[in-house]
Amino acid sequence: MRCEVVAVGTELLLGQVVDTNSAWIGEQLAVAGIDSHFQVKVGDNQARIVACIRAALARSDAVICCGGLGPTQDDITREAIAEVMGVELRRDESVAGVIRGMFARRERVMTDNNLRQADVPEGATVIPQTRGTAPGLICPVDGAETYGVVYAVPGVPAEMREMVRRAVIPDLQRQSGTTATILSRTLRTWGLAESTLAEVIAPRVDALEASGNPTIAFLASGIEGLKVRITVKGPDPATVGVLLDQEEAALRALLGDVVFGVDDESMEVAVAALLRRAGLTLGLAESLTGGLVGARITAVPGASEFFRGAIVSYDRAVKHDLLGVPPGPVVSEAAAAAMAVGAARVLGADVGLAVTGVAGPEEQDGQPVGTVWLGLALDGEVSATLVRLPGHRQQVRQLAAISLLDLLRRRLMARAR
Amino acid sequence: MRCEVVAVGTELLLGQVVDTNSAWIGEQLAVAGIDSHFQVKVGDNQARIVACIRAALARSDAVICCGGLGPTQDDITREAIAEVMGVELRRDESVAGVIRGMFARRERVMTDNNLRQADVPEGATVIPQTRGTAPGLICPVDGAETYGVVYAVPGVPAEMREMVRRAVIPDLQRQSGTTATILSRTLRTWGLAESTLAEVIAPRVDALEASGNPTIAFLASGIEGLKVRITVKGPDPATVGVLLDQEEAALRALLGDVVFGVDDESMEVAVAALLRRAGLTLGLAESLTGGLVGARITAVPGASEFFRGAIVSYDRAVKHDLLGVPPGPVVSEAAAAAMAVGAARVLGADVGLAVTGVAGPEEQDGQPVGTVWLGLALDGEVSATLVRLPGHRQQVRQLAAISLLDLLRRRLMARAR
Repeated sequence: MRCEVVAVGTELLLGQVVDTNSAWIGEQLAVAGIDSHFQVKVGDNQARIVACIRAALARSDAVICCGGLGPTQDDITREAIAEVMGVELRRDESVAGVIRGMFARRERVMTDNNLRQADVPEGATVIPQTRGTAPGLICPVDGAETYGVVYAVPGVPAEMREMVRRAVIPDLQRQSGTTATILSRTLRTWGLAESTLAEVIAPRVDALEASGNPTIAFLASGIEGLKVRITVKGPDPATVGVLLDQEEAALRALLGDVVFGVDDESMEVAVAALLRRAGLTLGLAESLTGGLVGARITAVPGASEFFRGAIVSYDRAVKHDLLGVPPGPVVSEAAAAAMAVGAARVLGADVGLAVTGVAGPEEQDGQPVGTVWLGLALDGEVSATLVRLPGHRQQVRQLAAISLLDLLRRRLMARAR
Repeated sequence: MRCEVVAVGTELLLGQVVDTNSAWIGEQLAVAGIDSHFQVKVGDNQARIVACIRAALARSDAVICCGGLGPTQDDITREAIAEVMGVELRRDESVAGVIRGMFARRERVMTDNNLRQADVPEGATVIPQTRGTAPGLICPVDGAETYGVVYAVPGVPAEMREMVRRAVIPDLQRQSGTTATILSRTLRTWGLAESTLAEVIAPRVDALEASGNPTIAFLASGIEGLKVRITVKGPDPATVGVLLDQEEAALRALLGDVVFGVDDESMEVAVAALLRRAGLTLGLAESLTGGLVGARITAVPGASEFFRGAIVSYDRAVKHDLLGVPPGPVVSEAAAAAMAVGAARVLGADVGLAVTGVAGPEEQDGQPVGTVWLGLALDGEVSATLVRLPGHRQQVRQLAAISLLDLLRRRLMARAR
């Protein structure tokens, strides 16, 4: 089974919007075991959209068209698909009713343009919307030279993702005769290099090689660490869920604290959950990160339950005067420890967490760029840890922030045991 | 003149990497007046890369292939282009010498694989590297059915951008018979809705309509404001530069303080320059932003010259105890003003800047999500400004941060007059 992706929109070609939808769809297709050999961007031009869909169906069994389903005159994906199918558009009154109802509920005036979204190529099946107004379409093409299935989904990422997950991937699997359920789960890790991670989980990769199910893949995720993706194929969701749980447990047994989250769980979400569970409040002292750690922590809804605040002591004098850092170099074990203690004291928090270091572009006090001290004060104990981080200013700052959060995460996990 | 983009790499199809290169190239082509109707992603498979290039040349005059020029066995863009040209690869000894020299200077052992990057299709011209090891290629194709030009550039964004600017766009303009220089400049704005911005600059757009040179385009840039791009065509860089300066001046006369920067200048870069020029130090008090404002300010290299630090007073008690906010509601005019004064006092700064508000998901003290107060203390004056920001938690936080920086920017500009 092969499926291509056609992203529609002149703004994509002009670089005003980066097409992230195709990449996301590509990942879903890969997980579902469907090959995707070509992905195309095309502008809002009917002849060119038609040419793209025809070329894709000549090479593949299915095409997902993304975008061009809106209410304006340059949204012409529906017309292009109807031309490929060799049929007319007809207004679907039940879709039109949904759109009218949505405007009525929001007390907004609906222009007739909006009903264009209820136009459906004859013979196509509607994928109902759950978020926006434009429905998706499943369009069988059965011409002399061109045949296959064309799916149309909106270009708004949240609407597109929900619809691809709910309707397109399952339909593709049905089309391909796969009655199997394929699901994946991603373990997010921090602290191991890719080669080390590969060595650690080699026993599981080897054990799975014969059956080929589950499969395990590594994905780099930039400054957010490495991901280990488990993909399982099975007869039904319940069976697949059990296999995913088993494989996750086997990998966690090898990886231990290196795993900080699953799927979309970020490092700050993991830290927030541990702080809540422990009933501890947090105070930060940040230097080179300038507020990045606090910004991450407060990205978690409900952070006010455990987060007291931060002292961003960028200037040396602020470290000494406000946090009680003793005289001497401020990128040092003593400074990081004093900052952690000072943050807990000044902010009235149970946990004091601190970071000081050299982000660059210049070295500081004879210390090279990337020298970073992490401080932690908890349960009457104070510690400071040195890390040497690679890269330039922005990368050092980002890596320092996630390293600090990871330090607290590991300590809270050890404490909970 | 038409030019398509072919992005090469299986990782792009699998969604492991988002193809941002095509979007950037598309923008450069648009600015240079070259049409780009299709952009394709294809995996590391020679037959499929060849098919993509042939299909592109059948529709267009030129193709830019991006990626697949590295040293490993799956980097096969060179081989695919040679197949399209109907020629062999030959090793370019001068390129090989550059690669050997680079490894020698870095004192690293070079494996033979690296010399694959010196293999050049016969008849192609090398675009020398200035950053990495893989050179670019300009490859004329002159077959019976397929003809045009294929450019090959590396997939590493910094290397690709430098090479496209330096060699590919100028060559395309030569190929198209354009001897003109086309350059663009982007004015970055904050504070006006798109429709208002369009009204304000309508006199310039109307005045330019007859000649069509310069042209003016609007680009939305999400939470970072709206961009106004000026594109000028002229006989040489000097003439074009003068026209760009004139048009920038005419637009600035209409837009005034709404313009905060040019091209890649961010809001924090503008604020940093103004603080440096005024010789003022800055202290922040952040609440709902949690550190975002400090993180932006300290993203500017050399921020330590003017940035003292921040008090992230997320908890109500920290606002009262540390910043001296009076009892009462903390999302209020009085609280924002007191936070600004407190930040300047506690951090020993000339300027105190503060933000407090409701990020959501829940309302707070009866105030709806998006209610944000901005405080500023400078020259013995204290003010607080209410803004109502749209969107959900993350957007409200981001908009609050840039709104606060913009408030300071306008005040410092007014002060400098």
